[in-house]
Amino acid sequence: MLEIWKHYPTVVPKLQAVTQLISERLQSDNTDIQELLNACANDQGKMLRPGLFLLFAELGEHPSQDNEQLIKVAATLEILHKATLIHDDIIDDSPLRHGEITIQSKYGKDVAVYAGDLLFTVFFELLSETMNGTSLMHYNATAMQKLLIGELSQMHARYFRAQTITDYLHNVKGKTAELFKLACLEGAYFSKQSPEIQEIAAQIGENIGIAFQIFDDILDYTSTSGTLKKPVLEDLAEGVYTSPLLFSYAEHPQDFDNLLQKERQVTAVEVKKVGQLVRKYGGVQKATQLAHNYTKRALLLITELPASPAQKQIKKITEIMSKRSF
Amino acid sequence: MLEIWKHYPTVVPKLQAVTQLISERLQSDNTDIQELLNACANDQGKMLRPGLFLLFAELGEHPSQDNEQLIKVAATLEILHKATLIHDDIIDDSPLRHGEITIQSKYGKDVAVYAGDLLFTVFFELLSETMNGTSLMHYNATAMQKLLIGELSQMHARYFRAQTITDYLHNVKGKTAELFKLACLEGAYFSKQSPEIQEIAAQIGENIGIAFQIFDDILDYTSTSGTLKKPVLEDLAEGVYTSPLLFSYAEHPQDFDNLLQKERQVTAVEVKKVGQLVRKYGGVQKATQLAHNYTKRALLLITELPASPAQKQIKKITEIMSKRSF
Repeated sequence: MLEIWKHYPTVVPKLQAVTQLISERLQSDNTDIQELLNACANDQGKMLRPGLFLLFAELGEHPSQDNEQLIKVAATLEILHKATLIHDDIIDDSPLRHGEITIQSKYGKDVAVYAGDLLFTVFFELLSETMNGTSLMHYNATAMQKLLIGELSQMHARYFRAQTITDYLHNVKGKTAELFKLACLEGAYFSKQSPEIQEIAAQIGENIGIAFQIFDDILDYTSTSGTLKKPVLEDLAEGVYTSPLLFSYAEHPQDFDNLLQKERQVTAVEVKKVGQLVRKYGGVQKATQLAHNYTKRALLLITELPASPAQKQIKKITEIMSKRSF
Repeated sequence: MLEIWKHYPTVVPKLQAVTQLISERLQSDNTDIQELLNACANDQGKMLRPGLFLLFAELGEHPSQDNEQLIKVAATLEILHKATLIHDDIIDDSPLRHGEITIQSKYGKDVAVYAGDLLFTVFFELLSETMNGTSLMHYNATAMQKLLIGELSQMHARYFRAQTITDYLHNVKGKTAELFKLACLEGAYFSKQSPEIQEIAAQIGENIGIAFQIFDDILDYTSTSGTLKKPVLEDLAEGVYTSPLLFSYAEHPQDFDNLLQKERQVTAVEVKKVGQLVRKYGGVQKATQLAHNYTKRALLLITELPASPAQKQIKKITEIMSKRSF
């Protein structure tokens, strides 16, 4: 799971500590519930958000850094992410996530509702232990709210073919980029950077996050389910129309209308056909270009961070993330 | 909706301000989402938790009390309660709540998941505006966690006929009493009571909360759907076995086993039959006695609060709540 972090020797042990902490916080004296909590803790994600946080936390001199505190803050980011994934999988009816059976698929939607809620409480508990009294408390509340509004807006835009790239980006900023933004901002905060650098860190996170989501959406059109570790074109079948489709649709609506107007009745063969049309009409290239623009903006902003080994590492991970095929 | 508060002239306008604040905080620039948010805000609950908080906040001299802050804290309690109800209604497939169509019934389970989550974020936002840097932050996180663990435990105990009253009370403490406890503790905190009085307030809240839940469970066996404003014996059909049934079952298991072993295949006629048996075997009387014991403990603890008009009002509402038929 930590493949992407293999060249980051300072980050890997901390991410392992984050995983360990999440397990420790998901404990219950009820054995039935414990099995569920273990499943929640055992996710094989890439840990991008806590990893980015930890890199930004290495900016500057950090003589007084409290390692245990950093692990906890990194854990808040991963737990909030996990909680939203568990609820997203309910909405999407997703069978798989990161190659593992989802909570909703294994335990049912009802259990998944409470499981996600319980993760929210652990998130909140760790925040209260690390950020109580700081301005980050309010920032977290606002970020979580933007994240949810982004999810709700995306849900309401389902099967809406005429949505624009602007609408799409607006939802991406909420549902994905907000948490990357928070991760980078918090890293800069805990490495005691100036408010100006914290703001630059936040912008870097936002741009990385938008690029990440666009790449993620592209993979749905270019990858295989084996590589992706979840079904391909799952979003499309569920009515979540992302940038590759929106670009192609805008130029050739009539070619898609017959297929897409069936909404949730669309067949697997038709979904495949839509995928082919998207590729044929250049939607993937255009989306890739869009993602690269956000990566470029992130890289430009990274040059404004204090020159340091951490700055170089942030640059490197941003480049790695823009070349991913997983 | 504020019927229960009609004799509390200082509380009613504040509760109206709480309702107003909740509406204001549930705003979106997306008109589709706004309709949902209005439905979330427009609940016709009894507002017991914010009301109790406001009464406890009137203890003592409170010369420096910030009214706006109190309204916000009261709103956190109601919003957390609303959020958990929205998610509970998903699990219970409930069509009605307080005489209104539930969010899950009106908008579907998927929307209800995010709607509840969004309320959690508003809860969290208001906390960060009123309690950042205080010990109440961590208390809220823990309370929310106990609440969820209580819900999860209750879910795992579904259709489990041999559970004891102790198991039942353990779940009630989490899922219901924790929030009443928090409300009373916070009231004592904001009226600047000593840590000892805050602890007594918390215990009063817990006892009121347990009694309240037991009375609520009894109403399922004694009321009509018209009075209750939701279907009667709904819990029973869903496998949530509460104290009236558990008391009767413990003494006459064989009379219930034929009916209850069908679990979710139980028919409406059989549910009615179970209700009759529960009443026949004295389950309602025993549960009423149990509830009264908790009310008595609360009333005894109330005598330890500083003598004041607020103390008298807290005593009165505790008595009113123990006689409710709604």
